[in-house]
Amino acid sequence: MKRTNYAGLIDETYLEQTVTLQGWVQKRRDLGGLIFVDLRDREGIVQLAFSNEFNEAALKVAESMRTEYVIEVVGTVKSRGEGAVNNNLRSGKIEVQVTDAKILSESKTTPFYIEDDINVSDELRLKYRYLDLRRPEMQRNLRIRSKITAATHEFLDEHGFIDIETPYLAKSTPEGARDYLVPSRVYPGSFYALPQSPQLFKQLLMGAGFDRYYQVARAFRDEDLRGDRQPEFTQLDVEMSFMNQDEIMALVGEWVAAIMKKTVDYDLDADNIPVIEYADAMRRFGTDKPDMRFGMELQDLSALMADSEFGVFANAIAAGGEVKAVVVPGGADHYSRKDIDKMAQYVTRFGAKGLAWLKVSEDGVTGPIAKFLKAKEQELLQATGANAGDLLLFAADNANVVAATLDALRRRTAQELDLIDQSKWAFAWVVNWPLFDYQPEENRWIAAHHPFTMPNEEDLPLLDTTEGAHQAHAQSYDLVLNGYELGSGSIRIHQMAVQEKMLAALGFTKEAAHEAFGFLLEGMEYGFPPMGGIALGLDRLAMLLAGQDNIREVIAFPKNSKATEPMTEAPTPVAEAQVVGDLKLTAPVYADVTAPNMAEE
Amino acid sequence: MKRTNYAGLIDETYLEQTVTLQGWVQKRRDLGGLIFVDLRDREGIVQLAFSNEFNEAALKVAESMRTEYVIEVVGTVKSRGEGAVNNNLRSGKIEVQVTDAKILSESKTTPFYIEDDINVSDELRLKYRYLDLRRPEMQRNLRIRSKITAATHEFLDEHGFIDIETPYLAKSTPEGARDYLVPSRVYPGSFYALPQSPQLFKQLLMGAGFDRYYQVARAFRDEDLRGDRQPEFTQLDVEMSFMNQDEIMALVGEWVAAIMKKTVDYDLDADNIPVIEYADAMRRFGTDKPDMRFGMELQDLSALMADSEFGVFANAIAAGGEVKAVVVPGGADHYSRKDIDKMAQYVTRFGAKGLAWLKVSEDGVTGPIAKFLKAKEQELLQATGANAGDLLLFAADNANVVAATLDALRRRTAQELDLIDQSKWAFAWVVNWPLFDYQPEENRWIAAHHPFTMPNEEDLPLLDTTEGAHQAHAQSYDLVLNGYELGSGSIRIHQMAVQEKMLAALGFTKEAAHEAFGFLLEGMEYGFPPMGGIALGLDRLAMLLAGQDNIREVIAFPKNSKATEPMTEAPTPVAEAQVVGDLKLTAPVYADVTAPNMAEE
Repeated sequence: MKRTNYAGLIDETYLEQTVTLQGWVQKRRDLGGLIFVDLRDREGIVQLAFSNEFNEAALKVAESMRTEYVIEVVGTVKSRGEGAVNNNLRSGKIEVQVTDAKILSESKTTPFYIEDDINVSDELRLKYRYLDLRRPEMQRNLRIRSKITAATHEFLDEHGFIDIETPYLAKSTPEGARDYLVPSRVYPGSFYALPQSPQLFKQLLMGAGFDRYYQVARAFRDEDLRGDRQPEFTQLDVEMSFMNQDEIMALVGEWVAAIMKKTVDYDLDADNIPVIEYADAMRRFGTDKPDMRFGMELQDLSALMADSEFGVFANAIAAGGEVKAVVVPGGADHYSRKDIDKMAQYVTRFGAKGLAWLKVSEDGVTGPIAKFLKAKEQELLQATGANAGDLLLFAADNANVVAATLDALRRRTAQELDLIDQSKWAFAWVVNWPLFDYQPEENRWIAAHHPFTMPNEEDLPLLDTTEGAHQAHAQSYDLVLNGYELGSGSIRIHQMAVQEKMLAALGFTKEAAHEAFGFLLEGMEYGFPPMGGIALGLDRLAMLLAGQDNIREVIAFPKNSKATEPMTEAPTPVAEAQVVGDLKLTAPVYADVTAPNMAEE
Repeated sequence: MKRTNYAGLIDETYLEQTVTLQGWVQKRRDLGGLIFVDLRDREGIVQLAFSNEFNEAALKVAESMRTEYVIEVVGTVKSRGEGAVNNNLRSGKIEVQVTDAKILSESKTTPFYIEDDINVSDELRLKYRYLDLRRPEMQRNLRIRSKITAATHEFLDEHGFIDIETPYLAKSTPEGARDYLVPSRVYPGSFYALPQSPQLFKQLLMGAGFDRYYQVARAFRDEDLRGDRQPEFTQLDVEMSFMNQDEIMALVGEWVAAIMKKTVDYDLDADNIPVIEYADAMRRFGTDKPDMRFGMELQDLSALMADSEFGVFANAIAAGGEVKAVVVPGGADHYSRKDIDKMAQYVTRFGAKGLAWLKVSEDGVTGPIAKFLKAKEQELLQATGANAGDLLLFAADNANVVAATLDALRRRTAQELDLIDQSKWAFAWVVNWPLFDYQPEENRWIAAHHPFTMPNEEDLPLLDTTEGAHQAHAQSYDLVLNGYELGSGSIRIHQMAVQEKMLAALGFTKEAAHEAFGFLLEGMEYGFPPMGGIALGLDRLAMLLAGQDNIREVIAFPKNSKATEPMTEAPTPVAEAQVVGDLKLTAPVYADVTAPNMAEE
């Protein structure tokens, strides 16, 4: 029978109407002669009532219903009795008195309850993902993700962007992350690579004159998994010709505002997204993706502490480093000495050799290093703005260690003291990045964004030497939300001579550059337009908008930390015959599982 | 400078306005002191005029412009002189008198002209795809494709479908086509497979209660390429719960109507798409994807010819075969005996042992077999409706050979005689397919659609035996357009017992079935809803709507017939280090080419 309503959307406006519903049995209460069933579909829950008074046969059917059975019912929407109203449900004021019922599918007892806040292992959730995804929380997560793409399609289509698919079976190019490779059967020893991004293809599409391109593109990286990485992830990828950085940032801002409106009904003021220079972000927050929902900015005390009696501070500055501090409001009472010892242990991962700290009281500063800083106490309190009850956390080391340490402490303490307004959506643009980034472990320079990023106009002459190039800054812009990088954009190089210099500064010989990127370099000789773009990470954006802390929660069938998909158990061994490209198969052959839309007519 | 207009969209409504334009030099005519440049962007062409009268410096710049240079100009829209009007261009009544000009990029001479109807090899076009795509025809093709997906997103979003991405790194399952395999670095000897369709995942999503799913999904098949196959292709993939075949067909019809409206402004009457039974399609047209833009249906003459004096006919029927004919209107004059000999040669590929034919004149039938059919001439003409001037083409063999032969002759002759109304969009549903299909070459039965297709309700008992199962019919429906299969849909099996029987009838032992599809079979034990869906082939649909005859014309960067992408030359050898999963790379390492949205914060 044809469904008339979603269960979860029925309310008192449907009183006395006959409805046909299908869905899952959430719960069943047999009161003897009267059975209540909570019927669940993707929109929510409605209470069904079965009794001889309504229909004898239906009551009979209800007697054999169990949790997660799939059922179909016809009934009449009626008011619940006064005492039975449930104000937590949209349908809480009504029930459906069932006159016809049918079981469509039975269910074994599920390995976990279909409800939010279950306490089971991720592995079990992933093995029974089709059950896990029935939970309202997961339904909501994936619908937020779907709304992001819907808003994206709508906005970009309206703004003249052309949706163009680029290949997934692509060329392996030397890149930072490891490629997933696909062996070619036609050319043994050759491989396709699953692309790490559509970057080069979208630049070629600008060269082809499409003017505005977009794609919801899957990207692949064979990296060791940790945190919120996945072997495959999704980018909302755009590229535009003949637009400068400001124009692109303005348009992307509008797009993101459309997403925020459709997904979480938030009015983002796209024209007033804060823009912060990379150098300022590092200086003020110690990170290139500052969480601007709260203050607690880093205080530079280097000048003040250059002649400090505290040797650690003075020495750090003498060695060319910095002394900076974070003021933790109310941190003095909150953190015990033991807590701070743990924090000191924690910051060693960022290279800090220890953690200097002070508590501020009405009577001045206290703590192990207080005695060394007595002389500068007033200046210190003035410089940092610290008040009684606050905790001061210091880092004294080279700039990188200071930044990493205080960024981490700032975020951690703010979280622990609940100083972050969780209802805020703090977007920011981080601009004017260095073109290159020095990797001390490897003693070499890499492209800070990617090798196709356009230097600032005035820095172009710097590219004539490798040393000069490493000092250049880029026309690049990252979009940050609540301390997460949502996407990284830039104006691209569109002229071969500039691109060759950039690759040379990365250590490519001219031959190596042309072997890896010849198709792009050659293309630039045929009139490529100025262009720029950005790619937003869909997984991370969905994660943030859904209020989750892991991207697995917004991916239907994610891999686990070992790059395995526990439900299907992929990857799996395959028959030797498949690997060597023979037509023989491991099991009986049958016709294509897919719509044979490619079949030869 | 910020563009004010697309070149191709300027017309006389912009007279006297100052415009800023960017684009490519299509053509340049230097009349000495007066230079005309045709400026091209994605929307079309506008004529620029440079002279000292308008601006000296701009004229100077124009002197060095060459074809495919990228330029930026500012100028005023003016009427062209009477004699200079070009009515073929939207901008043909105006020109832009340029007051400021700048060259943004130079271009070498391109290997072919940037215009429609070029006569160069496909290989050259693919090598310089970024130039090939500049041609107006290719711009239009890819924009039609983009409009199809835009209409799809809009319609399906409005109708409650949730856009859900399924994995591309998936499990290899035994299927008809060969999988592309991706070696796992974590588990040597194990492989991911690039999916041939999201079929099983979308069924699991219905099991998860999403109710309505869709995805613009890439699919992959490592098959020998021919015709319009590509290693990767795109499906517009949908699945719905609790809907029967008629409801799904109705909804898909509306969706396709939305696509037709947005892409080619055609009003498809979705409620009246012809529905034809599979058996009738085979009987009337000899194919399961009939081109219904024209008649020329197959005429069954088996009864008439059972006692024919012409031995070939009588013997075919005696052997259990058929005699059928196609009437080619006006074919008698059009085809010479030599033409028909060629046709006879052509049909051998379908298994036909020869080609019997008759020409109809005012005086009766003529041709080599006319003498054998004299006795039945009147009956024959009456049965076939053939008139003077028509050509009758016969096939006498088993049903498969007759169908294949006459289907091919029907389409070929209609094409050659220009009997097909090329402006027509002839959609049709083909329904009630057999569940299984016998493969004589391999002497085995395969699933006609796929192994997850639900048999007709009344045929369910047939599944209790393998022989019975092979006689069952399916709840499946193909959408056909102008003789092409656009997509293949079906109601799916949602109960484990039925699915197990289906797999058994395909030759799977219970163990093999559970090894290959255990996650699906197990899922069905936890309350799967009734469901069905379809996947439309985006490449083929775009090809038809763009009026092309090869899907390569609607794919930005397709592979050639050797599964190679001539521009990047993928697939390529890669460094040994990459293959064995070492971190060492073949060229200097630099930061990620992609927006590092998966990077650990």
